Amino acid sequence: MIVVIGGGPAGRFAAGRLGQAGREVTLVEREAIGGQCLNSGCMQVCALNDAARVMERAGDFAAAGVLDGAPHLDFSALLCEMGEVQRTIRRVLERETRAAGVEVRYGATARVDGRRVFIDDEEVEAEAVVIATGSAPAVPDLPGTGLASVYTARTLHTMPALPEHLVIAGGGVSAAEFAYIFSRLGSRVTVLARREFLGGLDPRLRRLALKELSGVEVREHTPLTGITGTSEADGAAFGGAAPGACQADAVLLAVGLVPQTAMVAGVEKGSHGEILVDGRMQTSVTGVYAAGDAAGPPYLTPIARLQGVVAAENILGHEMRYAPQAVPQALALANDLAFCLGDDGDDGIALSLPAPAGPGSFWSVPKGDTGLGKILVDPETGALRSVWAASPGAGITATYLAEAMRRKKTVFDLEDLIDVHPLAEGVHGLFAQAARVIRERDAEKEDPKSGPGER
Amino acid sequence: MIVVIGGGPAGRFAAGRLGQAGREVTLVEREAIGGQCLNSGCMQVCALNDAARVMERAGDFAAAGVLDGAPHLDFSALLCEMGEVQRTIRRVLERETRAAGVEVRYGATARVDGRRVFIDDEEVEAEAVVIATGSAPAVPDLPGTGLASVYTARTLHTMPALPEHLVIAGGGVSAAEFAYIFSRLGSRVTVLARREFLGGLDPRLRRLALKELSGVEVREHTPLTGITGTSEADGAAFGGAAPGACQADAVLLAVGLVPQTAMVAGVEKGSHGEILVDGRMQTSVTGVYAAGDAAGPPYLTPIARLQGVVAAENILGHEMRYAPQAVPQALALANDLAFCLGDDGDDGIALSLPAPAGPGSFWSVPKGDTGLGKILVDPETGALRSVWAASPGAGITATYLAEAMRRKKTVFDLEDLIDVHPLAEGVHGLFAQAARVIRERDAEKEDPKSGPGER
Repeated sequence: MIVVIGGGPAGRFAAGRLGQAGREVTLVEREAIGGQCLNSGCMQVCALNDAARVMERAGDFAAAGVLDGAPHLDFSALLCEMGEVQRTIRRVLERETRAAGVEVRYGATARVDGRRVFIDDEEVEAEAVVIATGSAPAVPDLPGTGLASVYTARTLHTMPALPEHLVIAGGGVSAAEFAYIFSRLGSRVTVLARREFLGGLDPRLRRLALKELSGVEVREHTPLTGITGTSEADGAAFGGAAPGACQADAVLLAVGLVPQTAMVAGVEKGSHGEILVDGRMQTSVTGVYAAGDAAGPPYLTPIARLQGVVAAENILGHEMRYAPQAVPQALALANDLAFCLGDDGDDGIALSLPAPAGPGSFWSVPKGDTGLGKILVDPETGALRSVWAASPGAGITATYLAEAMRRKKTVFDLEDLIDVHPLAEGVHGLFAQAARVIRERDAEKEDPKSGPGER
Repeated sequence: MIVVIGGGPAGRFAAGRLGQAGREVTLVEREAIGGQCLNSGCMQVCALNDAARVMERAGDFAAAGVLDGAPHLDFSALLCEMGEVQRTIRRVLERETRAAGVEVRYGATARVDGRRVFIDDEEVEAEAVVIATGSAPAVPDLPGTGLASVYTARTLHTMPALPEHLVIAGGGVSAAEFAYIFSRLGSRVTVLARREFLGGLDPRLRRLALKELSGVEVREHTPLTGITGTSEADGAAFGGAAPGACQADAVLLAVGLVPQTAMVAGVEKGSHGEILVDGRMQTSVTGVYAAGDAAGPPYLTPIARLQGVVAAENILGHEMRYAPQAVPQALALANDLAFCLGDDGDDGIALSLPAPAGPGSFWSVPKGDTGLGKILVDPETGALRSVWAASPGAGITATYLAEAMRRKKTVFDLEDLIDVHPLAEGVHGLFAQAARVIRERDAEKEDPKSGPGER
C-alpha cells in the first residue's frame, strides 16, 4: 500500500496517478477533499470575486440609471450558497479520485515518523508515503488575534454578516483580492500592509490594481500591531512611521501561509516547517515524499498538482524531475491581473497597450479601465521573455503564453495570431508591433540612411 | 493619393498600414468610423451580452435569496449608455487612424467605376483604391418588413423600449446571440429558424447553446413568411410543416449579411454582390482592391483586418497572399462558445470534458453549466485538429489554440501546460489526457500482452 496524506491538489494528483497505474493507494483526508484550494483558497476567492464583480457592475448600472437601484446582497446567504457549490465540487473530486482506484479515508489523521506511518495512531505498512498536508494561513503573534471577529481565509466562511468596516492585514495577492471583494460587496475596507502594497508586482499592473481598489484605504509600511476589543474586535492598532489605530468590526489576517507539518517528524524541514525535498520530491528519508504547500512556497495549485505527479511518477519508478519553467500567476480584482515572468532578466523591448474593450470589459470603458497588456521581448531573437495581462480571462492568456515562453517562442511566431473578435485582451496585438520594431531596427542597421516606416 | 472607402476594420487596417508606410491616404467614411463591427455588430453584441450576463446572474442570486430582489433594467438607458461607449471607442479609433498619417473624410460618399474614383461625385486621381464598404443586414422580401417595430442589428439601437415579445428571424450565430440577450434582459423570445437552429455547430456545443437559451422558444424549419401590423408589428407569420402565426410587438431580422457594393461598378462581382478578388485582394481591375465584408463571407472582423493589410501590403509592392488557416470563431451566450475547425476532417481521437468551475462560472455550478472543452487529435501524430471551448473567456482559448493548430502543434507539445488556477476552461486539461491515450495505445502495439495503465 502507498499512503498519501492530504486530499488537496498535491495529494489528489499523486494518489490519482498511482491509482491509475494500478497501485494500491490510500488517501487519508482529515477534513474535506479538495484541500485549501477548494475549501478556503482559490475557489473561495473565485466565488466571492465573481459575486463582487456582479455587484460592482450592478452598482455602475444603477449609478448610470440603467438599473432601477443597486441591489442589496445578503452576505450570509452568499456564503451559504458558496458552501453548497463547494460541496458539489467535493462530490465531483471524490468521484474522480475513487474512479482512479484510490481508497479515500476521511476523518482519519495520519502521522509520519521517519519511515514509519501511522493512521489514527495505528502503524501501517506503507511501501511509500506522500506527505501532502498543505499549509494554513499564518496567524501573527499579536494581541487580540483570538477575538471572535478576527478571521483568516480558512474561517471567513463563518462570518455571520458583512463587516461594516473590515481591516485586512497583509500586502500581498490575498490581501488585495479580499480588499476588492469586501469593498465591492459593501464593506468599508482598510488594508494594513507591513511593506509596500503588492510590492513585487510590475509597476503598471500595480497602478491598475490600485485603480481597481478605488475606495479601499491602503496603508503601506504600516504593520498591524494588535487588535482591540472584548469578545469581538472593535479596532486595530498599527505601527510604522505614523502609528495609530482605526475602528473595525472585523479583521481579516492575510499575511501569508505556513506549511502544515506538525504531524511529520523524522524528516528534514526548513525554517518555516516546510519539508525539504530533492528534485524527485523525495524527503531526507527514502520512500517518503512530500508535495504541495507542505514542501514550501510558491503555494500554487498547479505547482502542487505537478509536484504530486512528480512524486507519484518517481514512486512508480519513472524518473521525473520537478523543474517548472515559466509559471503563470494571477490576482483577481475587477480584472484578472495575470503575469508570467521569465528568467532572462528585465531588459529587452518592452511594449504595452491598454486592452481593448471586449467581453466582460465593455462596461469598464466609462471608468477608463479595460485592463492592459505588456510584453518583454528579447531584442536579438524576438523571444517572449515575460508577459503581463490585465483583462477578464487574462488567466487563460497567461496560461497559453507561458507555454509559448517555455517553448522559446518569438514574436515572429505569434505575430499572425487571428483573434476571436472582440477579445478583451491587450496582449495579442503586441506581437505584430514588437515584430515590426525589430524588423525596422534590423532594416536600419543594414541601411543606416533609410528611416523607419518602409520595410 | 490612395483612396480607401469605408472606415470599418478592413478600411482602417488598410489605411493605417499605408499611412505608416508614409503614403498619402484618404479614408472616406460616409457615417461613423469603426464600421459595422463597432457600431452595430461585434461590439453591440458584446455590450448587450455583458449586460445580459449580469442580469442573468443577478436574477439567479435573487432567486437564491442572495440578492434582495432582481433589479429592473431600463433598456432605453442601456442603449444610450452603449452609444456613449461606442462614441468613446470611435474617438480612440479616429485618433489611432489619424496618428498613422491617414486623412479621414467623414460624411463623404465615394463611388468607383472601374479604375475611376469619385468622392462626392468629384473624380479624384487615385494611384490605388481599396473598397472596404462592408455589408449590411439582409432584409428579406416579405410583407411587413417595413413596419416600425421591425429591426435589424443596424437599427436595434433605436428601439424605444424592451419588447415584451420579440420574434427573431434567423437560425445562425446572430439570432442565437440576440435570443440570449433579449431573453435575459426580460423579453419573451421566439426564434424562427428556416432550417435547423445553429445547424453547423458541433452537436455538443449546440446542446449547450440550447441549454443556455432556456426559456427561448426555438422553432426550427419554420421560416418567417410575413409580419403583420398597422404601423407597428403585432405578429409574425411562419411557414414550414406546421405553419401559423404568433404575437410579437417587435421583430428582429437576423437572417444574414449582404455585401454593400451598390456604389461600385465596373469590377467583377459575385451573385450576392460581393466583389471578386484574387489572393492579393485585387479586383478584376488593376489597382482596385477590395477587403472585408464587401468581398463576401466569412464576415469576421479579424479576417477583414487581415484582408485590409494584405491589400495595403500589395499596394506597397510587398507581395502578400490572403490565405488564413485555422480561423477561430465564437458565439456569446451565457458562456462564450468558441471553436476552431481544422481542414483535416472529423475523424481522430475526440476527447471532451465539462469545464471546471472558475472565474465567471463558479455560480453556474448550480445550473450544471460550467461549459465544456473538446479536442480532436490526429491519432498518428497527436496534432491538434480542431478545438471547441465553451466557458467565460473561451475566445482567448480559441485564439491561442488556433495558433497552435496553425503551427501543427501536438498534444505532446501542450501536455505540460501550467494553468493559472482556477481556470474556467475545459480544454487545457485534455492535452495530457490525449497524450496518455496515444502513449498507451502505442505501448500496447509494441507489447500486445500488456494492458493499459502502466507506461
